[in-house]
Amino acid sequence: MAEKFISERNLRFLLYEVFDVESLLTHPRYADHSREVFEMILETALRMGKTIFKPLLTEMDRQQPEYVAGEVRVHPKVRNIMRECGDGGWIAATADYDHGGQQLPMMVGMMIPAAIFSAANYSAGVYSGLTAGAAALIAGFCPPETQELYLPKMYAGIWQGTMALTEPQAGSSLSDVLTTAELTDQGYYKIKGQKIFISAGDHNGVDNVIHMILARIKGAPAGVKGISLFIVPKKRIEADGALAENDVNCAGIYHKLGYRGCPITQLSFGENDDCRGWLVGEANKGLTYMFQMMNGARIDVGLGAASIASAAYYASLEYARERPQGRKLTDKDPLSPQIPIIEHPDVRRMLLFQRAVVEGSFSLLMQCSYLEDLVLCTGGEEKENADLLLELLTPVAKSYPAEMGILSCSAGIQILGGYGYCDEFPLEQYYRDVRIHPIHEGSTGIQGMDLLGRKMMMQKGKAATLYKREVQKTIRQAKEDSELAPYAGELEKALDKLGQVTVYLAGRGNAELFLADATLYLEYFGIIAIAWQWLMQVLVARNALAAGGLFPGDVNFYEGKMATFRYFFVYELPKTAGLALTLTKGSSLTVDIINDYFAD
Amino acid sequence: MAEKFISERNLRFLLYEVFDVESLLTHPRYADHSREVFEMILETALRMGKTIFKPLLTEMDRQQPEYVAGEVRVHPKVRNIMRECGDGGWIAATADYDHGGQQLPMMVGMMIPAAIFSAANYSAGVYSGLTAGAAALIAGFCPPETQELYLPKMYAGIWQGTMALTEPQAGSSLSDVLTTAELTDQGYYKIKGQKIFISAGDHNGVDNVIHMILARIKGAPAGVKGISLFIVPKKRIEADGALAENDVNCAGIYHKLGYRGCPITQLSFGENDDCRGWLVGEANKGLTYMFQMMNGARIDVGLGAASIASAAYYASLEYARERPQGRKLTDKDPLSPQIPIIEHPDVRRMLLFQRAVVEGSFSLLMQCSYLEDLVLCTGGEEKENADLLLELLTPVAKSYPAEMGILSCSAGIQILGGYGYCDEFPLEQYYRDVRIHPIHEGSTGIQGMDLLGRKMMMQKGKAATLYKREVQKTIRQAKEDSELAPYAGELEKALDKLGQVTVYLAGRGNAELFLADATLYLEYFGIIAIAWQWLMQVLVARNALAAGGLFPGDVNFYEGKMATFRYFFVYELPKTAGLALTLTKGSSLTVDIINDYFAD
Repeated sequence: MAEKFISERNLRFLLYEVFDVESLLTHPRYADHSREVFEMILETALRMGKTIFKPLLTEMDRQQPEYVAGEVRVHPKVRNIMRECGDGGWIAATADYDHGGQQLPMMVGMMIPAAIFSAANYSAGVYSGLTAGAAALIAGFCPPETQELYLPKMYAGIWQGTMALTEPQAGSSLSDVLTTAELTDQGYYKIKGQKIFISAGDHNGVDNVIHMILARIKGAPAGVKGISLFIVPKKRIEADGALAENDVNCAGIYHKLGYRGCPITQLSFGENDDCRGWLVGEANKGLTYMFQMMNGARIDVGLGAASIASAAYYASLEYARERPQGRKLTDKDPLSPQIPIIEHPDVRRMLLFQRAVVEGSFSLLMQCSYLEDLVLCTGGEEKENADLLLELLTPVAKSYPAEMGILSCSAGIQILGGYGYCDEFPLEQYYRDVRIHPIHEGSTGIQGMDLLGRKMMMQKGKAATLYKREVQKTIRQAKEDSELAPYAGELEKALDKLGQVTVYLAGRGNAELFLADATLYLEYFGIIAIAWQWLMQVLVARNALAAGGLFPGDVNFYEGKMATFRYFFVYELPKTAGLALTLTKGSSLTVDIINDYFAD
Repeated sequence: MAEKFISERNLRFLLYEVFDVESLLTHPRYADHSREVFEMILETALRMGKTIFKPLLTEMDRQQPEYVAGEVRVHPKVRNIMRECGDGGWIAATADYDHGGQQLPMMVGMMIPAAIFSAANYSAGVYSGLTAGAAALIAGFCPPETQELYLPKMYAGIWQGTMALTEPQAGSSLSDVLTTAELTDQGYYKIKGQKIFISAGDHNGVDNVIHMILARIKGAPAGVKGISLFIVPKKRIEADGALAENDVNCAGIYHKLGYRGCPITQLSFGENDDCRGWLVGEANKGLTYMFQMMNGARIDVGLGAASIASAAYYASLEYARERPQGRKLTDKDPLSPQIPIIEHPDVRRMLLFQRAVVEGSFSLLMQCSYLEDLVLCTGGEEKENADLLLELLTPVAKSYPAEMGILSCSAGIQILGGYGYCDEFPLEQYYRDVRIHPIHEGSTGIQGMDLLGRKMMMQKGKAATLYKREVQKTIRQAKEDSELAPYAGELEKALDKLGQVTVYLAGRGNAELFLADATLYLEYFGIIAIAWQWLMQVLVARNALAAGGLFPGDVNFYEGKMATFRYFFVYELPKTAGLALTLTKGSSLTVDIINDYFAD
């Protein structure tokens, strides 16, 4: 099986050359760190990816979790992985010193291990990632005594954290959450309800599971304004510190297309009227808190998709280099030796597509992570602007990698031909694993409505204006380089057109028409955002190539960036032409169609 | 699980209303038949689909074939299915009376059962389909005494037929076939070699397997000009009629992403120097014969993909109608009841996409089948033209459904959300099953080069001219209808642009540059071809609606056709804008890129 699953070189390129993580070191929050620390994190994460995560990729897929006698049995190595992540400080990597964390920048402490672990074995990385997200909620919104109860065990990887939102009748529609919480005289709430599709919601790889759960306090307003957030442990902590069952029961697990190394559970809370929960923050503000975790989780999902696509890219690249088949079309001698398929333009096109998606996505995700860091370590307008831009880019950073990651893994299968369809090679697993990403943490349709309906419009379009300014800045820089100038011009045109399309859609009258094609708008916006990221990347590559004095490997890396950038502008950016046409046709077909027309 | 997997109404629409299968009854070949016969075929195939094929869909996926002690064990019901297909006359449905067939038109005898069986259970339909294809080769190119040896058992479903082309070093590059054939004094050839990825190449659901195998007679010219076609049975027929082992050994099977109900085998011929084969037709013309079967198999693959996508469409449509979630965007009351998700424009868009792909593909496939019938029952220029047009459309009819079928099944998963990813619903299986189609019987890349490099150019572009004429005919008809005229105008523009792009590519100089983006050209061509088919379909629908006197169900059907047609022109046809831009950018990136640039 292919060894390589991610480009170390590219991670360094993004960290140091494109987004200059070292510039964060001037901020007090990160002042203790240094490039040496970041390098150690990178090296250690890579070693763990290679030695702990990757070797279990196939095995965890084939030995799926089992639900036996009320217990969810996961691969026995899950426990080791969680402990390694705990002991190595990975779960608390970006947490505050005060909470026992390492206070690393998100770009390093979150992005680097998440990208590497997910590329090595996506399912295996979810356990610790979810735990870190749940712990961040507790760290952010709970009093110190609550933090002390949960955080040490969660950061140590001994307890699992989850986010429990979905219910049988409330998936995309969170306002329909029905789980109830009733305050008792003892200060805790009694929780009752069902949650479904909860990742790592129960398993025998940990000693306890801490659910961050959405529920409705009795008498709360209807809709999203009446949803509160609770901590509900599987086993509650008694006064003496002992663990007692908390009436949280796993009713079963799902058998899935992929992402099989991690169980997705159905949970029942309070079947015996003895499930206790503790309110996080204020009542009825649960969705606001949860969205802190959710926004992080959406970036995580985009990253998971880009990482799986990365592993698929290197697997198909290795195959393309080694597999002899056919000859150049200009060679008519059937006796001449066959050439490796990487020589065929069509295979190269598919490889460039894969790389363009992977590295374009990683770049946008690192951009988001950089903004997360600015939010954490700056203040005033700088912080506010970073936050707005991050809000705007989050649905894109979730969905572009998710949707295009599928196509990218599919291209990987195609390069391998029949072998891609068989389980001797990892492509078919990547293809199955990556398909979850447009679904969980808000489907692509939900992200589209979030982008167009909320983010583009919030504060009278302020985030949209900030975004435009950022892209224009990159365009201006690129225009000073005669090689890049024509590409910058194309991006400028695309950006202008995006503005026109947005105005057109906003003027369509009612909300239904405005958002009917929000999914396509998201796709459209995403291509332009990734084109921007590619232009940013090659500004760096051009400078490096111009400066000279490079090792041959570096020349190949930067020239590879240039080639992939060109690929993107020749093959991907033109797709916006069709999308713009469709979005401005003024069709009301999907709003008006009569359901009976789907009959027969 | 969803019951419906295909639209009977749509099959009748294509058969009788769009392509007028009854017009074939004037030809002597089909003169014995009647609409009543066709209806009986349709009804019987539907009954078999529902009662025999569909109930085994999940089971055959989960109980995959096993390779035990040199034997391939398939689901025990495979034997019944083959016998049902034999006894019911399905394998010989389109074969000549002289060969024991029913001499049905391809539109009925091939398309109808293949579409229905594949939609009900793709894997289960492959066994008989391959047998019919292999039998057609024997019927077409072997003397009567050979036919008598094999055909009755094959048509009865007692023996399996295969096409054995691929070898470890010869997949897409057939000119590298190495299997050898050496003439003996006894008149047969001794066969030696390895074949891989052979569908149904060995299994215990039949008593014998008849391989149509490509091999090279010793001393034959190198390349494709030295390839001959042989019949190589797994068990040869002795003079007394007894079966004897023929030194054909199964070395193993592949474990696949999907399409698991049918084994894909690795075969070894002549390990013990005792494998006998019989030459089909003339030496060194094997590829020409094989392409008769291959062209049919390509249509079959397109049909398989469209059929799986059809089943996925009805499964997601059923879910969309039943699943309540969310409210209209114009309804801000969280206490109002949730609506079925089919009310959401984004879900409708996905459903329309699925239907547009499914029914657009079926229409193009029926078009091809109609041309096959013209080839079989006409002569002179009419036959020649039908043949040329069929040749041109075959790579499109294979690839458009294959590639778009994947996206269509993926949209089906997306409609179901988390449930789409789980095996309680059939979507995840459809998604796995359909992924084989861009790979087998010539990958999409191969089809692209076939279309642009061979078919568009053959006989000085005669097929291309015929195609243009056909599309223009439809455009002219549509222009007479004020409602359809604007759409006809859009198709006309797209067709003109296609011509310009083709001329541009042909002028690019060398073969590498000319065909570098042939895959994209195929995609581009395919969208226009399907737009043409949609325009043809709605010409019929408009007439029916205008004539009036329809039952409500018919009105819904025709209005549904109109809506799906509009969907295609609003959402799919505009994609050609971006493809045309990319194809005419003059980029030589994928030809010129240095392989080292993929480093890191």
